[in-house]
Order: sequence, then C-alpha cells, then structure tokens
Amino acid sequence: MIIHVTHDAKESEIQTLVSNIENAGFRAHRSDGERRTIIGLIGDTSRVDENDFKKYSIVKSVFRIQSPYKKANRRFHEDDSVIDIDGVKVGGSHFMVCAGPCSVENEDDTVELAKALKDAGANTLRGGAFKPRTSPYSFQGLGIEGLRILNTAKEETGLPIVSELMGTEHIDEFVEMVDVIQVGARNMSNFDLLKALGQTDKPVLLKRGMSATIQEWLMSAEYIMAGGNDNVIFCERGIRTFETATRNTLDLQAVPVIQKESHLPIVIDPSHAAGTRYVIPSMAKAATVSGANGLQIEVHQDPENAWSDGQQCLTPAEFKDLMQHINILAEMEGKTITNETIVQK
Amino acid sequence: MIIHVTHDAKESEIQTLVSNIENAGFRAHRSDGERRTIIGLIGDTSRVDENDFKKYSIVKSVFRIQSPYKKANRRFHEDDSVIDIDGVKVGGSHFMVCAGPCSVENEDDTVELAKALKDAGANTLRGGAFKPRTSPYSFQGLGIEGLRILNTAKEETGLPIVSELMGTEHIDEFVEMVDVIQVGARNMSNFDLLKALGQTDKPVLLKRGMSATIQEWLMSAEYIMAGGNDNVIFCERGIRTFETATRNTLDLQAVPVIQKESHLPIVIDPSHAAGTRYVIPSMAKAATVSGANGLQIEVHQDPENAWSDGQQCLTPAEFKDLMQHINILAEMEGKTITNETIVQK
Amino acid sequence: MIIHVTHDAKESEIQTLVSNIENAGFRAHRSDGERRTIIGLIGDTSRVDENDFKKYSIVKSVFRIQSPYKKANRRFHEDDSVIDIDGVKVGGSHFMVCAGPCSVENEDDTVELAKALKDAGANTLRGGAFKPRTSPYSFQGLGIEGLRILNTAKEETGLPIVSELMGTEHIDEFVEMVDVIQVGARNMSNFDLLKALGQTDKPVLLKRGMSATIQEWLMSAEYIMAGGNDNVIFCERGIRTFETATRNTLDLQAVPVIQKESHLPIVIDPSHAAGTRYVIPSMAKAATVSGANGLQIEVHQDPENAWSDGQQCLTPAEFKDLMQHINILAEMEGKTITNETIVQK
Amino acid sequence: MIIHVTHDAKESEIQTLVSNIENAGFRAHRSDGERRTIIGLIGDTSRVDENDFKKYSIVKSVFRIQSPYKKANRRFHEDDSVIDIDGVKVGGSHFMVCAGPCSVENEDDTVELAKALKDAGANTLRGGAFKPRTSPYSFQGLGIEGLRILNTAKEETGLPIVSELMGTEHIDEFVEMVDVIQVGARNMSNFDLLKALGQTDKPVLLKRGMSATIQEWLMSAEYIMAGGNDNVIFCERGIRTFETATRNTLDLQAVPVIQKESHLPIVIDPSHAAGTRYVIPSMAKAATVSGANGLQIEVHQDPENAWSDGQQCLTPAEFKDLMQHINILAEMEGKTITNETIVQK
Repeated sequence: MIIHVTHDAKESEIQTLVSNIENAGFRAHRSDGERRTIIGLIGDTSRVDENDFKKYSIVKSVFRIQSPYKKANRRFHEDDSVIDIDGVKVGGSHFMVCAGPCSVENEDDTVELAKALKDAGANTLRGGAFKPRTSPYSFQGLGIEGLRILNTAKEETGLPIVSELMGTEHIDEFVEMVDVIQVGARNMSNFDLLKALGQTDKPVLLKRGMSATIQEWLMSAEYIMAGGNDNVIFCERGIRTFETATRNTLDLQAVPVIQKESHLPIVIDPSHAAGTRYVIPSMAKAATVSGANGLQIEVHQDPENAWSDGQQCLTPAEFKDLMQHINILAEMEGKTITNETIVQK
Repeated sequence: MIIHVTHDAKESEIQTLVSNIENAGFRAHRSDGERRTIIGLIGDTSRVDENDFKKYSIVKSVFRIQSPYKKANRRFHEDDSVIDIDGVKVGGSHFMVCAGPCSVENEDDTVELAKALKDAGANTLRGGAFKPRTSPYSFQGLGIEGLRILNTAKEETGLPIVSELMGTEHIDEFVEMVDVIQVGARNMSNFDLLKALGQTDKPVLLKRGMSATIQEWLMSAEYIMAGGNDNVIFCERGIRTFETATRNTLDLQAVPVIQKESHLPIVIDPSHAAGTRYVIPSMAKAATVSGANGLQIEVHQDPENAWSDGQQCLTPAEFKDLMQHINILAEMEGKTITNETIVQK
Repeated sequence: MIIHVTHDAKESEIQTLVSNIENAGFRAHRSDGERRTIIGLIGDTSRVDENDFKKYSIVKSVFRIQSPYKKANRRFHEDDSVIDIDGVKVGGSHFMVCAGPCSVENEDDTVELAKALKDAGANTLRGGAFKPRTSPYSFQGLGIEGLRILNTAKEETGLPIVSELMGTEHIDEFVEMVDVIQVGARNMSNFDLLKALGQTDKPVLLKRGMSATIQEWLMSAEYIMAGGNDNVIFCERGIRTFETATRNTLDLQAVPVIQKESHLPIVIDPSHAAGTRYVIPSMAKAATVSGANGLQIEVHQDPENAWSDGQQCLTPAEFKDLMQHINILAEMEGKTITNETIVQK
Repeated sequence: MIIHVTHDAKESEIQTLVSNIENAGFRAHRSDGERRTIIGLIGDTSRVDENDFKKYSIVKSVFRIQSPYKKANRRFHEDDSVIDIDGVKVGGSHFMVCAGPCSVENEDDTVELAKALKDAGANTLRGGAFKPRTSPYSFQGLGIEGLRILNTAKEETGLPIVSELMGTEHIDEFVEMVDVIQVGARNMSNFDLLKALGQTDKPVLLKRGMSATIQEWLMSAEYIMAGGNDNVIFCERGIRTFETATRNTLDLQAVPVIQKESHLPIVIDPSHAAGTRYVIPSMAKAATVSGANGLQIEVHQDPENAWSDGQQCLTPAEFKDLMQHINILAEMEGKTITNETIVQK
C-alpha cells in the first residue's frame, strides 16, 4: 500500500502517521521528494482497508498494491479449483451446463423438462423456488415445495440441483435439499448471508451484483471462503449500464479477468443479461470460447405461459440446437461436460 | 399498459394474446394500423409485470402507463406523509437532521458526541452497530452492545436512534432498541428483509441501492408498505457511476422526482456519496435548498482515529458550523427542525 | 408514437395538442380511459422527435413505436449490406480482419508489420496518423506523412487502409489516401463530421461512443446515410461503465442487437475495450462466434516501445496464433475472410 | 508516478525499464520488497502518460501522483481565475446567470426574451444557432443568421452572447460575433476544435461530456490553455448513468471537486441535466449554494411551441420567480451577479 501525503503536511503530522503505521505492524518506507512525500507500507496489507489511511487529513491518496483477497487469489493457489457438485465437476477443464426454468411451477412439467435438458446435454438443473421479484405483488415462488419438486426431478434424471437462497432463514433446508446454493445478484453484498454460507460446505453459485466491481465480487467470495467454505463458483449475469436495448450489459471480459485473479471457476448466465430470447444463443457461444467454465441458461417448455421471465427462456428445442454448438466449442476449448455420474433411470 | 405487436404477427397469435389479456381481468383495446398493431390494457395494471407480456414472441415492446407502486404513490395520497420518530417528525415541513459516527466505538465517546450533536442542532442520532464491510477482515461493528450504547446516549440527550439492520436475524432487538431501522444500500433489494420490516410498525430509513433506479427504490418502499408499515423514509446516498473523483455520484435530482411521485419523505446522506470530507458541507447545503426533508451526516470527534470511514466524517466543530447554514436554509425553505420533545437532561 | 396525457389535463388543452398533431400531418387516435387519455400518432413518425410532444405540460410521457432511423433500418432493407473496401468485402458472410499499429511510426516498421499481418490472415491494415490523445502534451500522430506511409504499405501488400479522421479539415486527403475512414468513439456525435462524410462515398468505420446507446449509434449512421453514403460499418470498442479492471466494458450483446435492427455490418475492436493485452484473444474469439462481421486488433512489433497504447498491442506472433483460432471459428460461423483481390507483390 | 512491477519480473527486465525511465529524463527510485518491486519516478511527470509504462509486460499497475494538467491546476495558480465576458465577470465572487432559448427562432422573439431575461437578472444571453441534434431530420438551427439575431438582441440589451460552435469551420465568425464560444458535451473531446479554440482569446464555455470523468474534463481545458487561451469556464450539464427518471444525472459534487483542483470557474446547467421542467428550479438553487460560479438556464416565451427542447424550458415568469431565490442565495454565498457594464438602451 502506498500513501501519498499532501505537499503542505507538517513534519509532525507525517511522523504521527508513520507511528500509527508502525503500531499497526507494518514497516513504513518513507520517500521525500521536493514537492511531496510518499510512504510505502511493508508487510501483509491484504487485510488493510485503504480508508484506514484516507481518513488522515494529510493523506491525498492511497494506492493498493496487494490485493485485498487471499483465499480467492490465484497467487496463493495457482491451480484451478475444481468443485464437485454431487458428482458433476466445474472448474479447470470441467464445464458446467446448468439449465432449467426461471420458477418451478409444478412437478410434471419440471420432471419432463429436466429429462429433455439432460438429453440435450445439461449436467445440472436450475429452478427458482424462492424468487426475488421487484414487485411485492408478483409471484414469489413455490418455496420449499419448489425444492421438493426439484428433488423429484433429480431422482428421475440424476441432475444435481441449483436453486437460489434469499436469506438465512431457510439455509438448513437448502443445505439438505439442493446441490448448489445460488446467491442472487441482489444479495451479492448481503454479508450476513455470505457469512452463513461460509459455515456450510455446500457449493455456492455467487452471481455478480448489478453494479459490483470485479474486486467487490472477489471480496464476496472471500467472505464465504473466510468462513471455511472454498466451494465458490462465480456467475456473471450482466451489469447495469446506460444501455437499454438489453436488460443488462454482459461483461464477458470478466472471464479472463477473474481467471487471472482467481483460481475459482466462472460461469456465464446470458439469459438474465439479455432479458430477451434472441440474444442468448450468440452470447452462450461467445461465453464458451471466452474460456468460461460453464453456462446457466433459462429454459421453459412454453415460455409464453411461464410464470416468470418467459421473455428470456429458450424452448427445449432451441436449447438442444444451441447445445450442439456448445458441445463443439467447449471441446475445442479443451473442456469436458461431465455428466458420467448422472444416474440414468 | 400498451403492447406493441410485431408487424409480422399472425392474426391467430394476436387473438391468443387478446384472450389472455381478457382472462387476466383486463379489457384489451386493439388498434390496427397499416404496419403495426397496438393493444392497450384497460383496468388496474399497477400490479402487472411488463414481462408478463414481453414473453410473447409477437410482442416487440411493452410500455407502462400506470406506475407499479400504489401505496407509495402520491397520486393516491396527495398530502406529504409525516413520520413520527419517537416525537421527532420528518416529512412535509419537518426536517430531520441525523448525525453521528459511522460505527459506535464506546459509551463515553458516543454520549459525549451525542450531546455535542444535539447542541449543534441534530434531532436524531445515527450510529452503526452492525456494519456491512467489503472485507471480511474489517471491523464488523459492536453488534447488540452498540445498540445498548446508543440507548445510553438517547437517555442522556433524548435523541432518537437510527441504526442499520443487516438481516432478519436481529429484527426483534432492533424493534425494541432503535427508533428508526436503517436498510443499507446493499440491502435495498433484500426482499426477505423488506417483508419482515413490513410486519413491524417501526420507521424505516430506506437507502437507495448503488445501482437502483428511482422506480426500483419506490418498489422497495412498496414492499415494506404492502406488509402494512407505512413509515418509510427514503435516503439518497449516491449512485455508482464511472466517476471516481468521489466515491459515488450524489443524485440530488432524486429529491424533486421522489417528491413528485411519492408522498414519503426523502433525506440526503452526503457523507457516503462523497466519501471524502471536503465535499460534504456544500452538498448538505445544496440538499437543503433542493427541498429534501432532511440530512444524514457522519460526525466523529477524531476522524483520524475513527474505526471506520473516518475519511468522510466531519468533526463536531465542522458540523456545528455547517448547521448554522442549514438552519437558515431550511427555514428559508419553510422547514422546521423539530426537536421540542427531546428531553433535556 | 404514443402520448400519455396527464390525468388532470383540461379538454381544451387536449384539443390543442390533437390539433397540433394533425397540423403536423398525422392522424391522432385518441383513447379516453377513466383516469387517463392516450393519443396514438398514425403516420410516418420515424423523423419525429419525442421531445416535440414532451414539451406540452399536459404530456406525462411519450413512447416511440417506430424507430427513428430509416436508411440504417433492417426493416426497410432486409438483406445484409456488403461493403466493398477496395476489393475486400465486409458484411453478410464476409469477415473483415483489420490489424495494425495504434500509431504509424515509420515506413520500414509499418511495411514489415503489414507483410506479417497479411501473412497471418489480416485483410485490411489499420494505422493511426491523426491521434486523439487525452493530453495535449502526448504524441499527436505523424499526420499526412502517416497516411503516405500507410500507402507505401498498401503498395507492398495490397491491404486496404483504415485510418481515423478527427475533423473536417483533412477530409479531402483522407478520401484520396485511405480506403476506410474511421470515426473515433469521441467523434461519434460530431455531427459536422458525419454530415461531411455523408457527402463522400468512402466506407466509414463508425466507432461507438463511450456512452452512446445503440439507438444513438444507429442515428449517427443515419446521419452519414442521410447524406447519401450507405457504406457504414459499425465498430463496438467498449462502453464506459463503473468497472475499472478493464478500460471499457465490451458490449458483445450489441452484435445480435445491431444485426436485428440494421442491415449494416458490425465489427469488434477488443483492443480498446480491454486496454490490456491478456484480455484480447479470448474476446476476439468470442466476438467471432457472436456473429460479428469482423475484428479490429492492434498489433505492434515491439509493444514495449510503441509510441502509443503499447499496453493493448499484440505482437505479430500472438496475432498469428490468434488468427489460427479465428479462421476456424469464422468458418464455423459461415464466414469467409476475403482477401483474394489483394495483390501479392 | 509509481510503477508496480510484477513479482515474477526478471532483474534484466527491471533494469531495462529503469534505463528507459532515466533516458526519459527522470530519476528512478527503486524499492525492492520480498514479493514485489516498486519504482517511483522523480521529476515532472505531469506530461507523462501512464500507458507509457503500462505497456511493459512486467508492469502490473501504474499510479499517478502528479496531476496531468498544469495550466488548469490550482496548485500552480492559487487564486480563482476571473474571466471577463465583454464586461460581465465570472469566477471568484462573480456569478454568471446565462439564460435564453435552446434555439434562436426569430429576431422579434429573441429581442423580447432578452429584455425579459435582463429584467429578471440574467447577465448573459444564450441561444443556439448551430444545433447538435440526434436525428439528421430534426431542425439544425438557423446558422449564421442566428448569430446575427443574437447580436441584435445584444444591441438592445447589452447582454453578452453565448452560443455553441460545433466544428472548426465557422470559428472566425464565432470569434467575431459571440462573446463566449460554447463547446457542447458531444464535442468535449473533439481535440481539433479544442486546439483551434486555444489559438483564440475568446472565453470558452466547456461543457462536460456525458461520460467524461472530471479529470478528462480538466484535460480538455488544458488543451485549450496549452494553445494560449486561459479563458475557460467549466459547465456541468449532467452525466449519463442508468437512471432514466431524468435525462442525465446532475453531478453537483463536481463543483467542490473542480474548485479544489482548478482555479477556473464552474457553472451549472440544470436544464439539460433534468430534461424536464419541474426539476430545474430546485437544482438551480442547489447549484448556487453548492458554491458554483453561475448558472445556464433555458428559457422560452412559449415552451410548448419551442422549436427544440421545449420540455426543459422555463417561461420568463418562472425564470423571474427563480431569480428571486437565486439572488438571495448567491448573495448569501458572497457572490455578486455583475451586470453593471450592461448598456441600458
């Protein structure tokens, strides 16, 4: 960490700052120029907040050299993390294809859809049981009954289940009933929830907040890992910008950036980014050759009658067509779509 | 709500859409032009989601005419809401001045500061007990002990207490121990928390999410009000943009916009928007003449030794100077800073 | 265009509005509900500005149904436009690979680099002669001498030339000396320049402004086409968002959106979006499978000694490696990288 | 400038970098830690581009200590600049009130309006003669005839004229016919135009680009000043964000930031930021107490029949009402609205 002291700071103020740096356990490397003083902190600054020094009135700016995340940092864990989702792997050369409806609606449709998705090449099943909706008057999901239906679909297909948890209240049921707990974009900085998930060993699919920087996203992963749970999967689903032609702007550059900074896998959700059907296939293909570790795609048998987000659902036939491209592109990227352990019933 | 049908839609598809609109309880007003068909929905569409129609493949776009919020909507509640915070009023002509430290650190300093703030003209006391911090390694707040200290300060000064609740776990303690429950920017769309707050009758200070549109913010208020709690106070604290000279961009235009759309009060937090001390006084003054219903400002006796966010804290002396301007400007705006019921000890 | 009249409008005010609509040559389709009046404009509204109606105090909102662009609109030109760049085609199934240095520095290096790029598979040569630089103290380009050097490189390789024009002053030299005139992101809304380019028949590579919506970008193309020049190629190079890990956020979703709305080709510049070398190859590949009509990539023999933007230049060897992937992916997408007419010397 | 070298850099690579720094005329202060090397550049780095070092593959990041602007920098010019606009002053304690129509439409209305504005307290007259319009099919302004009309209004009222120049073509007429040349938001980075304005001594009102950082804005001023013209006035008119309730987000925090970084005056244009009438008065008041050096406000006798941007024009009566507040608030801020030299006819 490097501290830039204002040119009119008094010597006594600088010395107070230096003392405080040393009392905090660092060495202070001071460099006085003609017009400014620079102080370098020597030691492990990964856990230091820049604001702890910006608060001094003589400090003009603070530059961070060492990243504020350790457990999520590739520098301290060179190899790609591979996460095991009840037998399906994601990370490194293992590619996750997670598909399913926005909301679980009923058992028959869910089971039928899960079979079609598996046949098309999906290796995990997503389905919303608790739904974060902008309006309190919209359908809020089937709740625990939704999780039960997803489990029936898993029994029939072997597909592990991914579902979103919105708060700490139902965490025990989720640990018991799902294979991956999804944290939605709106909850990426719900630190109470992240801490609670850190106390489990369940894989967590951590969606990027709509206005979260990549560094903040890494810090949210760090929250989960700091609690002892290393099974974090990043999921980019579009960020909020001024552009309104699509719901959000898909930041595919996050793939090479995350893979440089972290050992954790990153998957792409083109459905929520686009918010409209026709944009999804090209972005799913683009994500695959960008080096992403997987995809999450919304599929519904009858999008025009879906209970939520039908405008961004592919049909099973469209998904199957898309998967023919994804299979080829993933293989060209050296990726395997593992589903060997999935029980055929 | 107005639905724009694509020019190549088949008649049978349009009729299916019209039937579904009618089955949902609306009248469909269809207008066929040479090159396009427009369908107007007649009835109360406030609770209808645009996406419920965007999901049809023949629908090109959907325009909302009626706002999706009812209880927060000024149209159905013309007069300004005035909210009572244990005797201190906010809304209409009543101006809230909420000040205090970012984090509560200890009893002596908190009580001393509360006295100074009251003398300077504050009528409510803020203080963080549970702190949302970007890093899991940063100080996370004193927890319930912080609330206890705030109550001691209230006993000494009569100042009602504002403190942030981060999840549903501690809601009962907050209802008992604070006068206004603050929902932080990161939790503005934590719908589980909003629903839980809707079940209480405690005033809620609802901070705007960093990337929340004003309409989404109104919908978060609607969540709380839909549960039966009408005591919602908006708090603008800066939105995330590309500009990095300040931490966030303070959107003061939100004041006239919110006051046009809603009857609920709106207060401004210049401290978090700026993220740096020198920007705060001018923005506090600007907020006051913009018509805002109050201010929330961070103050600390010794910002350079604050445990969090010292870089954006005023000293008590700076706050007192600022209040001399705020008192005059608020009065010019026809506002009263009520603190008559505050017990002098 | 649909006009939403405020609920408290007087009948006489509505009638004035209706008269004005009719005087402007449209039919007004009025629909009175219980609580609001909606007026539809019937006729060709493509050239009408929404603000022409927003200015009425009784108008609450205006919704656009018909797009404000005609010549750039796919609806009136169903087939993909294919643009001829001195023998190299772009658009439809023709894929453009444009590579070269940020700034032209000298003749020998430029010729040598052009040969290497051609061997690697590029079919057009980019090179900056007039450089838009943030600082007035930075190198501003070789000017006309730069164009002369590019022409020498073209003589040696046959590669058509792409170079940026910053204002109307040098337009005649550009028409004479380059094959594609590039309009930079900062000039996307420099309407004087767009109008002047509309008077030529030279292909124009129109970069997206850093904060331009896709609709504004289409309108800038419309400016050029309104003057009579249909040879417009869109180039996405990243938009400005809050994310700082990359210089800009590459909006690949613009590819399917532009291709749905317009018949004009769109190419992707991953170099400027990333602003850093390691992100470029994965995004170039992603762009290719997203359906884009080409790429623009910065290459320099010795990036560490480039006079500008070396941090985002590939070496010729890295570019050659990348092209092996691009060739395969483009072919899978049904695209041809035409360079048959390029003279071998 | 501080350079952070990657941990795996070879000693020979670091030495090459150090040599290049020294060859560029700086001293290199090298500091080797256990896990990283930091190099400080000593010397005047204000004209150095960070990218000149980011281009080295061993460089992980570059931090700028010294600002890249000198002439615009308050550090080298402590006192506020006061700019003389044909007798009307702006800057320091002098407050500019610039009002007028979006577009000049005809002589009679313009003269009549100018008289009303002067009576209400304006001290400069704005009027568009060349209009940057999103659509090529919209009214593009009266051109030079518009400037002639503005001059007639000046003869009648003495109010100096502010009008927008869109390119270098008409610069001579503007120097002759207007008192302040306005550079619009879309042209803030039109460097050819900025350079040409640097060759004049005419005051320039430099609007902030819709997505320009404050630092980029300062650099655009530096372009004009580097040419020898020190008469630059900043004008904030809203930045582009995700919020759509207003046209742009007014960044009032830019006032204290610019005033800290620069000696040049800054005025606020609430009309373009809001894009809607009702938001303007509260923001004009807020701007005044924020410490801004002036206002630019659109006024039209009959906004519903304005040829452009009527939705954001105040009427003369509304402007007069507003000025009663502005006069008081400006005086409270220690500002004078100079118009003593304006000829009364």
